[in-house]
Amino acid sequence: MTETSALLVSALSEGELIARFTPLLPRGRATLVPTGDDAAVVAAADGRFVVSTDVLVEDHHFRRGWGTARDVGARAAAQNLADVAAMGAVPTSMVVGLVLPPTTPVRWVEDLARGLADVCAPLGVGVDGGDLSAGRQLVVAVTVHGDLEGRDPVLRSGARPGHVLAHAGAIGRAAAGLAVLGPRAEGQDDDGAAAAAVGAFLRPAPPYAAGPAAADAGASAMMDVSDGLLRDAGRLAHASGVEIVLDPLADSVPGDLAALAPVATRLGVAPESWLLTGGEDHGLLATFPEGAELPAGFRRLGAVRAGAPGVVTAPQDAPHAAAVGWDHFRR
Amino acid sequence: MTETSALLVSALSEGELIARFTPLLPRGRATLVPTGDDAAVVAAADGRFVVSTDVLVEDHHFRRGWGTARDVGARAAAQNLADVAAMGAVPTSMVVGLVLPPTTPVRWVEDLARGLADVCAPLGVGVDGGDLSAGRQLVVAVTVHGDLEGRDPVLRSGARPGHVLAHAGAIGRAAAGLAVLGPRAEGQDDDGAAAAAVGAFLRPAPPYAAGPAAADAGASAMMDVSDGLLRDAGRLAHASGVEIVLDPLADSVPGDLAALAPVATRLGVAPESWLLTGGEDHGLLATFPEGAELPAGFRRLGAVRAGAPGVVTAPQDAPHAAAVGWDHFRR
Repeated sequence: MTETSALLVSALSEGELIARFTPLLPRGRATLVPTGDDAAVVAAADGRFVVSTDVLVEDHHFRRGWGTARDVGARAAAQNLADVAAMGAVPTSMVVGLVLPPTTPVRWVEDLARGLADVCAPLGVGVDGGDLSAGRQLVVAVTVHGDLEGRDPVLRSGARPGHVLAHAGAIGRAAAGLAVLGPRAEGQDDDGAAAAAVGAFLRPAPPYAAGPAAADAGASAMMDVSDGLLRDAGRLAHASGVEIVLDPLADSVPGDLAALAPVATRLGVAPESWLLTGGEDHGLLATFPEGAELPAGFRRLGAVRAGAPGVVTAPQDAPHAAAVGWDHFRR
Repeated sequence: MTETSALLVSALSEGELIARFTPLLPRGRATLVPTGDDAAVVAAADGRFVVSTDVLVEDHHFRRGWGTARDVGARAAAQNLADVAAMGAVPTSMVVGLVLPPTTPVRWVEDLARGLADVCAPLGVGVDGGDLSAGRQLVVAVTVHGDLEGRDPVLRSGARPGHVLAHAGAIGRAAAGLAVLGPRAEGQDDDGAAAAAVGAFLRPAPPYAAGPAAADAGASAMMDVSDGLLRDAGRLAHASGVEIVLDPLADSVPGDLAALAPVATRLGVAPESWLLTGGEDHGLLATFPEGAELPAGFRRLGAVRAGAPGVVTAPQDAPHAAAVGWDHFRR
């Protein structure tokens, strides 16, 4: 009998490897022709589809030592599906290209497929196609699709002076988790708060339903926060030609400040830096017209004003953030 | 002034690199929201879309010494768009993920974008999104989409006994070109026939319009030939549960045999091997009901019979092909 945990992908043909993990992948509610032919066919009842693509490269976006292959699959799926939600769409379908060094265990690839399924199956998203190649470095290339269900797409460019800036989902947690993972290599055990932060980094939980809900509530601009609040708010401000002024963090995200405090104290850093510059939580940042009722899950983070286009003014209670060059965020 | 040809991607930020090549990419006739937001929005008037993905890895699928970056981009686009055509769909949209070693010249990335545009722009296909990452090895991950325009998708599984096997596009040319590229490293100049074969490998020209035309003509099964006629016919035979019997090559593809003869003679190989096992021309292999008029561009290659399911019987004039183990093609 073959010992699965020791079997390497180099021992299998492409067809054999595909046969191993295809049964682990979910068919979606929009899947009409699943993976296995030249192409899949996916329903797009709206008459439009939303599409976004990301590449994750080992030692750049993930390290095998940080967590399991299942975590890598779950994170790859989540961060891509967040881009669909950020347009106001409901995710429907995903395709995945893999580059695998010959020394990759077959079990690693199977677990990656399980991680994709962990995120996609509950949302009814199909993993409807893929491709495999050998290569020198692990790469996971994910393309996701979504259905606007009749909504106008919510772009980054619609924020106007007087609008309210709001956010749904976690903030600063993944950055705290990544900070914990560094020293952990030296053998330190995690306490509860640190373990939770690591979990938030390895398995981000974007608020997918908040995207369409924000669109329905009249959001004027939206994006997911992948590179940190300051940087991504700067992109939204730049695209919209407005200035964004952040509220004091003690007013806008007091619960997050308190939750991050134990980990921050242990590592000797200011939790404000994780809240302002930490990415990879893939929460949703949106603006709403003044007076609009924020949909469930969103809390106010600041305000939009004419001011200096593309500029984000840091919160009064994080003055050190003002030392960062804002030009970096004018993208 | 910066010398563009010497500038490496490591000298630019991701935003600066994106700003270099985004203007080189075409917007498509179905592009509603182009690249630049969290996701693109693409029209799918049919209410369904076709999707396929491929990864191309340096030293596995291409070598920088073989041709230009523009060739790599053109080939990446063509081989993916052929998968859309093979479903009977018209290509509409593409997204591209790139993994770039820091030593990649910026000019190489710009030329890759030009190659994508060379193929996509004339077809009205938009390059509607992308992602960049650093990495140790060049990877081009392409996902393509198409519109069935009301047609039923043509799968691999619909061939039935009595149907005719037909093919549109080039066959054996890319394999001949690849065979030429090996010895050329020793400094040999190409004659006309060899140069044409190399061109067919570097810039395959799939018969995109033949896909929807075949669907309209009642094709019962279809796929693109990426791994060679025998192997891919075997996949179609397996999916359909039928046997495929190939006609003598001297009857079915006499022009191709003649065109390949000079290059084959020079390299001391039998041109039949390129015709039967050479891939990467991305022609379309289809079956049609008996008596159906073959659409323009298709010529008969053989017949479908009940026989042994998944088996391809080699042409009588290529008896050496029968020595190949057919199990490899029962996928």
